[in-house]
Amino acid sequence: MNERTTAELENLRGLIDGVDQQLIHLLRKRLDLVAQVGAVKHGAGLPIYAPQREAAMLAKRREEAKKMDVSPQLIEDILRRLMRESYLNEKDIGFKQVNPDLGHVVIVGGSGKLGGLFSQMLVLSGYQVKVIDKDDWARADEIFDGAGLVLVTVPIGITCDLIKDKLTTLPQSCILADLTSIKGEPVEAMLAAHSGPVVGLHPMFGPDVGSLAKQVVVVCHGRQSAEYQWLLEQIQIWGARIVEAEPERHDKAMQLVQAMRHFSSFVYGLNLYKEEADIESLLQFSSPIYRLELAMVGRLFAQSPELYADIIFAQKESMQAIGDYLDNYSQALSLLQVGDRDAFVAQFKEVAQWFGDFAPQFQRESRAMLQSVNDMKTG
Amino acid sequence: MNERTTAELENLRGLIDGVDQQLIHLLRKRLDLVAQVGAVKHGAGLPIYAPQREAAMLAKRREEAKKMDVSPQLIEDILRRLMRESYLNEKDIGFKQVNPDLGHVVIVGGSGKLGGLFSQMLVLSGYQVKVIDKDDWARADEIFDGAGLVLVTVPIGITCDLIKDKLTTLPQSCILADLTSIKGEPVEAMLAAHSGPVVGLHPMFGPDVGSLAKQVVVVCHGRQSAEYQWLLEQIQIWGARIVEAEPERHDKAMQLVQAMRHFSSFVYGLNLYKEEADIESLLQFSSPIYRLELAMVGRLFAQSPELYADIIFAQKESMQAIGDYLDNYSQALSLLQVGDRDAFVAQFKEVAQWFGDFAPQFQRESRAMLQSVNDMKTG
Repeated sequence: MNERTTAELENLRGLIDGVDQQLIHLLRKRLDLVAQVGAVKHGAGLPIYAPQREAAMLAKRREEAKKMDVSPQLIEDILRRLMRESYLNEKDIGFKQVNPDLGHVVIVGGSGKLGGLFSQMLVLSGYQVKVIDKDDWARADEIFDGAGLVLVTVPIGITCDLIKDKLTTLPQSCILADLTSIKGEPVEAMLAAHSGPVVGLHPMFGPDVGSLAKQVVVVCHGRQSAEYQWLLEQIQIWGARIVEAEPERHDKAMQLVQAMRHFSSFVYGLNLYKEEADIESLLQFSSPIYRLELAMVGRLFAQSPELYADIIFAQKESMQAIGDYLDNYSQALSLLQVGDRDAFVAQFKEVAQWFGDFAPQFQRESRAMLQSVNDMKTG
Repeated sequence: MNERTTAELENLRGLIDGVDQQLIHLLRKRLDLVAQVGAVKHGAGLPIYAPQREAAMLAKRREEAKKMDVSPQLIEDILRRLMRESYLNEKDIGFKQVNPDLGHVVIVGGSGKLGGLFSQMLVLSGYQVKVIDKDDWARADEIFDGAGLVLVTVPIGITCDLIKDKLTTLPQSCILADLTSIKGEPVEAMLAAHSGPVVGLHPMFGPDVGSLAKQVVVVCHGRQSAEYQWLLEQIQIWGARIVEAEPERHDKAMQLVQAMRHFSSFVYGLNLYKEEADIESLLQFSSPIYRLELAMVGRLFAQSPELYADIIFAQKESMQAIGDYLDNYSQALSLLQVGDRDAFVAQFKEVAQWFGDFAPQFQRESRAMLQSVNDMKTG
């Protein structure tokens, strides 16, 4: 590199430094303004996530960017990233308390991660939260006395028994709710144990989400829904979306969405181990898409084996779905073994047709994700 | 919402509009400055992607952000997204031509997507590119006459036969290279057909990448590497990273990375179809992680069945890996069927231990990706 090139690059990089300084200032300013919006919304009890408003704002910015010859997708991506930051910061302000007259909340299993998250959100919304864990049952009467809401969040395997054994003498007006990832049996157990309001909830996210904005909570109605309507509103104020479902339909979907998927990821990891794969070298050869897929498998093994065992063993019916996959795999493999490429292509086309418009939609979505993955690369 | 709230929100949103206008201006300015850096680099023949320089710049910005009470991760994510945009724009400038004395380039199968991408990159770097496709073989002598590089990019199934049949009379000094996703047989076929320089390349990315920045190209050396050194340099100037590998080691990794993975995704889609799953309702119940996984499966079916058949049927050895997976799946399923939760947990722990530090690393990586997925949600 000659001296002139070096000097030119140095000069340009100095100018870029200056622009980035201004950029950081501007980000700070925007975060502050959005925090003020959050405070006003908080005062008025408005939900923090307003999809239509957000879409309208982004559409406007895309237009403005086009006029400046800036890619509309660039400004949209940057603003979405900024909005995530703002949602995270909402927690610092707290949330409107929808039901100030509620007695205290008892979280059964509150020392678990998901229980901890709900406890935090409830406290940030002005509720008094008590936790009952394994060692606290001697004081149960005292803890439940005057409770307005009891939220059960213990491992799936013991949820129903705990409800049957320990939650039969709650105050009549108290709401009984659970956060278990299956809904049929727990909701039935709650209805049997308690004669007051009952509702089943399934938060469709892990406890490590920074914010509930845009997350989904499935609701299975139990009894006296008017009494717990405030709770659903409260959850929406935290930014989450409520999706209502029949317990059976929910549980059927979970067999495919959770049990089957987790199981096949588990086997994929197991298979790599048995094949004595060299992860380092797999990564070296990996396109962004495979790196992403490997990460999705590997992340499983950074988490609790018991949690996954709970999810996979929770429903007997899951085994059917898991077994069906084996049959399909085995049949498809036989096409390979006899070298029947045409039959493979025909079957591929059949599935593609079934996916219909979802296939190209998924391709677009995943392309955006893969670009993000590539952005993160450092080597 | 009362009048005062409305007025306050309107006022704040007006201020945010103003900040966003400034933001768009600043983005335009930064893109222009980076384009100037690109032009200087282009003139000096420097690669567009400089990992160390990028890491140092990001570290500096993170520090500056901290001082302004802006999250370091926020500024890093935004700058990475901006850098992607800049890499895309590099194409408008063109690239340094490393070997101006080369005769023209012939791309065999140049009307395919990957051939098109390489053709575009070569033209942007000042090379003359001719394409030879199915109907052009009558004019082959004329097209190959004086060629400095012949790049083969036809479907895997016909690569070796084409090399054997049609590429035996290239000019002695001409470089023969291929872009096939397996390397053992094609490199051997090239070495047998041509006595001049030979090199096998495997670009580890699809033809829809906007830019080669940070992408990987695997290189399997064939013969007379000094003669094609310029080509590897050229690829690096486009922003890609060169990873050298023995053909066998590469092909073995591809059995797991490509054949096995694509096959199990194919079966996953097939299984959803056979189970008559309702995609709409699966999506409704989906956490970000499952939405991502479903998208990774669905994207397969938006693409060419022949391409996937080619990849899966390319290596006989892949069938072994695919069959091993079946065995592991079947064994793990039997643990479920007898309800042996403890054995499942024990095996999970064994695999987790084998993943070692990769598991938490993958968890961190995927968390960042899942946050991006959540950012994209609109509903």
